[in-house]
Amino acid sequence: MTRSVGVGVIGYGFMGKAHSHAFRNVAAFTDSPLVPSLEAMSGRNLENLKQVASRFGYKRVYTDYRDLIKDQSVEVVDNTAPNNVHKDPVVEALEAGKHVICEKPLARNAEEAYEIYKASERAHVRHMLAHNYRFVPAIVLAKRLISQGFLGRIYHFKGLYLQQWLSNPDAPMTWRLKREFAGSGALGDLGSHVVDLARYLVGEVTAAKGTAETFVKERLNPQTSRKEEVTVDDAFHALIKFQNGATGVIEASRMATGHDNSLLIEVNGDQGSLRFNLERLNELEVYSVKDAEVRGFRTVLVTGRDHPFMKFWWPPGHIIGWEHTFTHEIYHFLTRVNEDRDVGPEAATFKDGWRTAVILDAILKSSESGKWESTS
Amino acid sequence: MTRSVGVGVIGYGFMGKAHSHAFRNVAAFTDSPLVPSLEAMSGRNLENLKQVASRFGYKRVYTDYRDLIKDQSVEVVDNTAPNNVHKDPVVEALEAGKHVICEKPLARNAEEAYEIYKASERAHVRHMLAHNYRFVPAIVLAKRLISQGFLGRIYHFKGLYLQQWLSNPDAPMTWRLKREFAGSGALGDLGSHVVDLARYLVGEVTAAKGTAETFVKERLNPQTSRKEEVTVDDAFHALIKFQNGATGVIEASRMATGHDNSLLIEVNGDQGSLRFNLERLNELEVYSVKDAEVRGFRTVLVTGRDHPFMKFWWPPGHIIGWEHTFTHEIYHFLTRVNEDRDVGPEAATFKDGWRTAVILDAILKSSESGKWESTS
Amino acid sequence: MTRSVGVGVIGYGFMGKAHSHAFRNVAAFTDSPLVPSLEAMSGRNLENLKQVASRFGYKRVYTDYRDLIKDQSVEVVDNTAPNNVHKDPVVEALEAGKHVICEKPLARNAEEAYEIYKASERAHVRHMLAHNYRFVPAIVLAKRLISQGFLGRIYHFKGLYLQQWLSNPDAPMTWRLKREFAGSGALGDLGSHVVDLARYLVGEVTAAKGTAETFVKERLNPQTSRKEEVTVDDAFHALIKFQNGATGVIEASRMATGHDNSLLIEVNGDQGSLRFNLERLNELEVYSVKDAEVRGFRTVLVTGRDHPFMKFWWPPGHIIGWEHTFTHEIYHFLTRVNEDRDVGPEAATFKDGWRTAVILDAILKSSESGKWESTS
Amino acid sequence: MTRSVGVGVIGYGFMGKAHSHAFRNVAAFTDSPLVPSLEAMSGRNLENLKQVASRFGYKRVYTDYRDLIKDQSVEVVDNTAPNNVHKDPVVEALEAGKHVICEKPLARNAEEAYEIYKASERAHVRHMLAHNYRFVPAIVLAKRLISQGFLGRIYHFKGLYLQQWLSNPDAPMTWRLKREFAGSGALGDLGSHVVDLARYLVGEVTAAKGTAETFVKERLNPQTSRKEEVTVDDAFHALIKFQNGATGVIEASRMATGHDNSLLIEVNGDQGSLRFNLERLNELEVYSVKDAEVRGFRTVLVTGRDHPFMKFWWPPGHIIGWEHTFTHEIYHFLTRVNEDRDVGPEAATFKDGWRTAVILDAILKSSESGKWESTS
Repeated sequence: MTRSVGVGVIGYGFMGKAHSHAFRNVAAFTDSPLVPSLEAMSGRNLENLKQVASRFGYKRVYTDYRDLIKDQSVEVVDNTAPNNVHKDPVVEALEAGKHVICEKPLARNAEEAYEIYKASERAHVRHMLAHNYRFVPAIVLAKRLISQGFLGRIYHFKGLYLQQWLSNPDAPMTWRLKREFAGSGALGDLGSHVVDLARYLVGEVTAAKGTAETFVKERLNPQTSRKEEVTVDDAFHALIKFQNGATGVIEASRMATGHDNSLLIEVNGDQGSLRFNLERLNELEVYSVKDAEVRGFRTVLVTGRDHPFMKFWWPPGHIIGWEHTFTHEIYHFLTRVNEDRDVGPEAATFKDGWRTAVILDAILKSSESGKWESTS
Repeated sequence: MTRSVGVGVIGYGFMGKAHSHAFRNVAAFTDSPLVPSLEAMSGRNLENLKQVASRFGYKRVYTDYRDLIKDQSVEVVDNTAPNNVHKDPVVEALEAGKHVICEKPLARNAEEAYEIYKASERAHVRHMLAHNYRFVPAIVLAKRLISQGFLGRIYHFKGLYLQQWLSNPDAPMTWRLKREFAGSGALGDLGSHVVDLARYLVGEVTAAKGTAETFVKERLNPQTSRKEEVTVDDAFHALIKFQNGATGVIEASRMATGHDNSLLIEVNGDQGSLRFNLERLNELEVYSVKDAEVRGFRTVLVTGRDHPFMKFWWPPGHIIGWEHTFTHEIYHFLTRVNEDRDVGPEAATFKDGWRTAVILDAILKSSESGKWESTS
Repeated sequence: MTRSVGVGVIGYGFMGKAHSHAFRNVAAFTDSPLVPSLEAMSGRNLENLKQVASRFGYKRVYTDYRDLIKDQSVEVVDNTAPNNVHKDPVVEALEAGKHVICEKPLARNAEEAYEIYKASERAHVRHMLAHNYRFVPAIVLAKRLISQGFLGRIYHFKGLYLQQWLSNPDAPMTWRLKREFAGSGALGDLGSHVVDLARYLVGEVTAAKGTAETFVKERLNPQTSRKEEVTVDDAFHALIKFQNGATGVIEASRMATGHDNSLLIEVNGDQGSLRFNLERLNELEVYSVKDAEVRGFRTVLVTGRDHPFMKFWWPPGHIIGWEHTFTHEIYHFLTRVNEDRDVGPEAATFKDGWRTAVILDAILKSSESGKWESTS
Repeated sequence: MTRSVGVGVIGYGFMGKAHSHAFRNVAAFTDSPLVPSLEAMSGRNLENLKQVASRFGYKRVYTDYRDLIKDQSVEVVDNTAPNNVHKDPVVEALEAGKHVICEKPLARNAEEAYEIYKASERAHVRHMLAHNYRFVPAIVLAKRLISQGFLGRIYHFKGLYLQQWLSNPDAPMTWRLKREFAGSGALGDLGSHVVDLARYLVGEVTAAKGTAETFVKERLNPQTSRKEEVTVDDAFHALIKFQNGATGVIEASRMATGHDNSLLIEVNGDQGSLRFNLERLNELEVYSVKDAEVRGFRTVLVTGRDHPFMKFWWPPGHIIGWEHTFTHEIYHFLTRVNEDRDVGPEAATFKDGWRTAVILDAILKSSESGKWESTS
């Protein structure tokens, strides 16, 4: 038996659309015990908001997120707004007794993130940080293999998130390049994904040292026709240490010409290795030392009926898109809401979001101090 | 300004779901002038039908497709039923003045296909054969490059469609392995895609010689627990000639161990070459002789704002899934319905479906005669 | 204990150099019981001959191959001359009691090939047809896996040999495009490799049907500044049947833009599959149905100490070049000479060369008849 | 006109063979003005020495390298001995007025390296540090493209050297894991290649911070059957800064399961990017922002007649092996000896070797201090 659950989404941009698409597909494709009912969407520009809301079939719109939180039919609040509008809506929704989903990164820094995490501990509701890459079938398979000991003792983790949208020095200024709105640059936006996957796949991080760089210091604001200062990082590189003794290299860049969206992961253990590239997200590369004379990375097309979440979709070899990671994630969330259980460790919690923020802050601090910074 | 258009879908299986998902996404993501309204779905098993219809939000269900065709609110009839239920519903819908979409292959053989094609010529409505691979962004880009002369004079076409679901000799009997339901095996199911892309990308085919094989002659029917004869081909291989002088090799197999859904295309011209693999459908490989000392196949990730249909989706590098080829295809169809124009040459028409059937029949005939068979 | 064996090489061109390099490396790197001593080289242009012979350390040169054959110190005659100079020197060397190596293809057609084969049967010496691709470590591994049943029952063989040196219509006339010198075009030059590997890996071929094409009918002879007719094929495509029931597609082209030297092999069985590409000759791709949820083609870097012939070379991952296939081949030959045993089935014999010629001739015949031609 | 030049090689192991093979091939395949004559080889184990020397045709052997240096017929001394036997023979050979080649790394640490560098400045002979990867055709092409401005302003350099021969904790103790013989572990052995390529391709390095790890602290010595301490690093990771403002990540590991010999390079500039993998050393990946809608990494098979050094070898697409990088390197050296010119900037000089050692030492130091260490 299924029952309907009222959903309200804050934000109607890129992420608002991705989440809305997923809420609908949870109903259409999965066996979720809770079936989302799209009750309300909020945003500041009424005209744009109405258009998006109507395209996805939302019943009501609000220009103030507070009204959405108050809406009695809304049981789940999903916050897809920019980073500087994460803390207040999330804390208010938690306090209003709503189940809460929040887009990553959890906040602009560890301090803000801690407040959210603590609010979630006080609340008697379910919550999830929307680290959707934990719900790529290939990543779920990777996690499963690591848990089963397929890799043995882990030596190395490598996580790179490479994009190129700023590599052209003439690319324009946006709010994402301003510290007051974004908190940080590649670090928070891309690095949060990398750190989350590092912790998910390998374990807790105890120390970090790194460096953050801004290659193009000023960019033209097309609205003011003036050059403005870039106050966030274009790229960062860091070394990390894991509690279990593994070492890691993580980095992210928006200046990596040739890469549109390469989230590259590699994990090496004494029994095998794994590789992943988000631009080929239906594939996982797996190496086993047991393969004897026919050893080599296997390119596993993770689209079989026996692969994570894939029974909900198409026959083997019919690849899914980036957007369906959200369907899986929300499916997981609703299943746990139904069971009244925490979403972890499969999904990221607000505590995970805070831990990630602590690690990212340590990298920034190390970039100035030049030293190892503890993240314990 | 947009207006609503009533849609009725025959069939609720794999393809019924894929098309339904697309009708919804056309409304949510594209700028289609016609916005689909999901009016009715038909199928023979009422319980299953109701479940699928409700998941996608269809207003009504029918257990007889004739009732769906009669439904006044249905302006577009989309037939996703098995091959042996293509001709009658399509012809009836055309005669009832509905716009018609039909899943591929158009029919079980050229004779049936010809009847449908002729019915479409008599009707004053729009129609489309749902060869969705024409709407993979990478294939649209390929077609554009060929049309622009990027490849120059074309020498070779290669088209392989490789699957492995029958390579295990213990795989069970299904209706797909019976001639009376399926018409043919790999030939019609997979070969129709290959032939359609050959004609779309390179041009008309004038002759074919080939061979079709059934490696496993009998398979166990799990319902009767008896071995039954396989009356269709497991695989075929053929040589083809194009009107423009190019030569082609086409083949398809359900015994190609290691391949879940490899539709591999390669086109070689005197100025460049193209390669495509459906298992990596967001990529197109492009070679240009003009690249001088840095010549080599470029792996183009066809996900940029400037790439076909991609402005409707996510930022660059966020790959789309197989399912969105249907969104593009239906978007194209609705645009043409709105303009009251034929869907070709971008989409396949029923005439294209008939031509493809003629070529596939010639391959089967050649498999027995052993000779070149004209397909003109 | 090793002993020295006198070697004489006919021809000092591309192949003369490749073989000479290999004779030297057999001595330097392998544990061959016979150590080649480079006694003599023959060729028609004395000046060029002397230069090459001196670079490799040959003791004597002859402008008439008959003198080389007569040379008492020459125990092994290796014929690397063009195809039209294969039969006479080989037969004469056999009759003179020399061990003989001959470059592929064995002859210009099956008739010539048969004469050579019969001469080898009459002689009491060792002989080898230099199909060096049987000595690529990855191919040896492929053969071993197939013999061990790793692939199970074989369904499909695919063999393509793609080059692009004629895809430019302005590429000049050469002797290779004249039937009287070359016998055929892509068919004999490239197709002989494909057919040899088909027979080596899968088994005997019983029938073929195919088509051969000449896309550019005339080319400019730079020496005469006149257009001359191309009297061989630019490309061929063929379907073949194996004795064991497998089907095959083979083809070769010199018009395949983007491919410098792509010899692509794929073999599918009911238990697994193999893939190979000569442009990445140190790699073999291997798929096993037993790999369960982590199934996928493994990219095996065939450079380990445990891989065929690799103990003679460098540490793992230090790839070898195309040239070393000759070292392995000659190592094998000398080992068999020492043991007074036939070189097969690991290496190609002149009987293999004749069988390959029969199959290639059948494809040419079928190109005209349009029908299946028996190759039994 | 060519003239002969007498060569003496110190060491008959892995590198002794690789260099000897190259000296012979320079004569056989290139147009070098100086033709090597293999005069003498030295080593401590007479029996083994004799065997190797005879396989390559050396005229004399010495068990003391000093005798080789004294040998009047030896004009070029090539030192392929272990790292702890670099300084003395090199300095003595320089002082004896011989041209000198030395295997990398130049020495066990910066101090030793400096002594050698200074000795080379005092000598009036030619010298070269055998960083053979500068002579991979793909790397030469990469350097050429960067010099031509193909990449524009460079943002990022990444250099990883991954091997797996120690990832098994039961792999035995060897001299390479002892600081007194090897100086360091992955750092000197593999890291020296990475640093050399970083400096060659991007420019001088001004600072480094990093960490070195030993995962398996003790290993069994098979000769003593006792566990002994590993006194060098298994892996290191470091961040570097270039004088031109680019940032870099470099690392090397002998614990990277799945990698036999992956030297991975990536360089990103504002106009394009390059990628290289030593396990596919005949290929270079090149990205240009100018490729508009058909942008993507080109996989360039660097085997054309127009590609660096490839005119000496085979037709296009016939790949060369790792061993031929030495042929190119020695060809370059002999050409410069003939012209009485320094081997740089194409080849590495002893000054380059010293600079590399300074940077590697800074990484080790930083591993303890935890801070950025200047390398200026």
